[in-house]
Amino acid sequence: MATGHIPEATVARLPLYLRSLTELAAAGEPTTSSDVLAERAGVNAAKVRKDLSYLGTHGTRGVGYDVRHLTFEVSRALGVANTWPVVVCGLGNLGRALAKHTGFTERGFPVVAAIDVDPEIVGTTIDGLRVHSPDELAALVHDLEVAIGVIATPAEAAQETADLLVAAGVRSILDFSPRVVSVPDTVEVRMVDLSTELQILGFHLQRDL
Amino acid sequence: MATGHIPEATVARLPLYLRSLTELAAAGEPTTSSDVLAERAGVNAAKVRKDLSYLGTHGTRGVGYDVRHLTFEVSRALGVANTWPVVVCGLGNLGRALAKHTGFTERGFPVVAAIDVDPEIVGTTIDGLRVHSPDELAALVHDLEVAIGVIATPAEAAQETADLLVAAGVRSILDFSPRVVSVPDTVEVRMVDLSTELQILGFHLQRDL
Repeated sequence: MATGHIPEATVARLPLYLRSLTELAAAGEPTTSSDVLAERAGVNAAKVRKDLSYLGTHGTRGVGYDVRHLTFEVSRALGVANTWPVVVCGLGNLGRALAKHTGFTERGFPVVAAIDVDPEIVGTTIDGLRVHSPDELAALVHDLEVAIGVIATPAEAAQETADLLVAAGVRSILDFSPRVVSVPDTVEVRMVDLSTELQILGFHLQRDL
Repeated sequence: MATGHIPEATVARLPLYLRSLTELAAAGEPTTSSDVLAERAGVNAAKVRKDLSYLGTHGTRGVGYDVRHLTFEVSRALGVANTWPVVVCGLGNLGRALAKHTGFTERGFPVVAAIDVDPEIVGTTIDGLRVHSPDELAALVHDLEVAIGVIATPAEAAQETADLLVAAGVRSILDFSPRVVSVPDTVEVRMVDLSTELQILGFHLQRDL
């Protein structure tokens, strides 16, 4: 399957479809429709059909999509069958929340190590996770085959952390800090802004004033 | 300004533009282009121009958009000039991280109260925030004019928390739990799935195998 040809905007919607499919399966639904998936993902049904057609998946007229089969196809496209070990950098409240988040492991992203600069916690175990110092990062990435680095540090430490991750050979970074970090073109960075959804809610609140 | 007519997909992109504009302003850039905004927001330039046209804003050919003016227009559309007090429900690591997140206050979403069921922390002050028991929620919402409830509880407490928020008169909910909650049609719920961005990174990692 030529997953390389799936448009970026479609890739960004696949996790939404996968979550909806997981919920539908949990509710015992054998089939679903592009309308149902569209409603849950917040897009229109034509877009759902187009997105799923990139996976080579087309619903059956009058029946819809087989939930179990579609779950498999979307998971495969997203690489969920693979496991991508994660290191969390920065064990403040957000880092600890992310390190504990069971949804990551369930979806193939086990948090295998944590990094912090605080000598009080380096060498200890927090929520079952060993805390290492930054100078151990390269060895950890190598030994544990870390694929993704999560930056959960304060903003002022974000760039330094990104540099460390890149130097250690990590090619995928998820940045929860409010700071845009610079990395070489060969490294993929995605930023998570926890305020985005609040701003969308704020838009609706204002409209209703 | 008829903000009611801005398409939902455009609303979802406005926070991305606003963040880019804030960064451009911080970097001292007086003007910007749809190409620059498109690159930062991960969409194409034609979509940026279309989105911004809903705000009644059009760039000047050869000059682009005035960063300061566009920031104002996007902020106004998002209702950033208004302040929407937030209550955080559930003070585990994620709840504490959200309660401390300075970006919320900066963007007009001050966290004014926190709710938890743990009698050990109810009545205490954590990171400057007073912790209340769930039976105080209705009074808090009334007294502090809470507009948005954030659910940061374990999954099994999510529905009960949503019910409490709705009963207290909250009409906007941001749900960080991995559970879909049921609410009346008059209540807006947005879910944040912390795994989504990891899954997008996973897609790219798999493609490069």
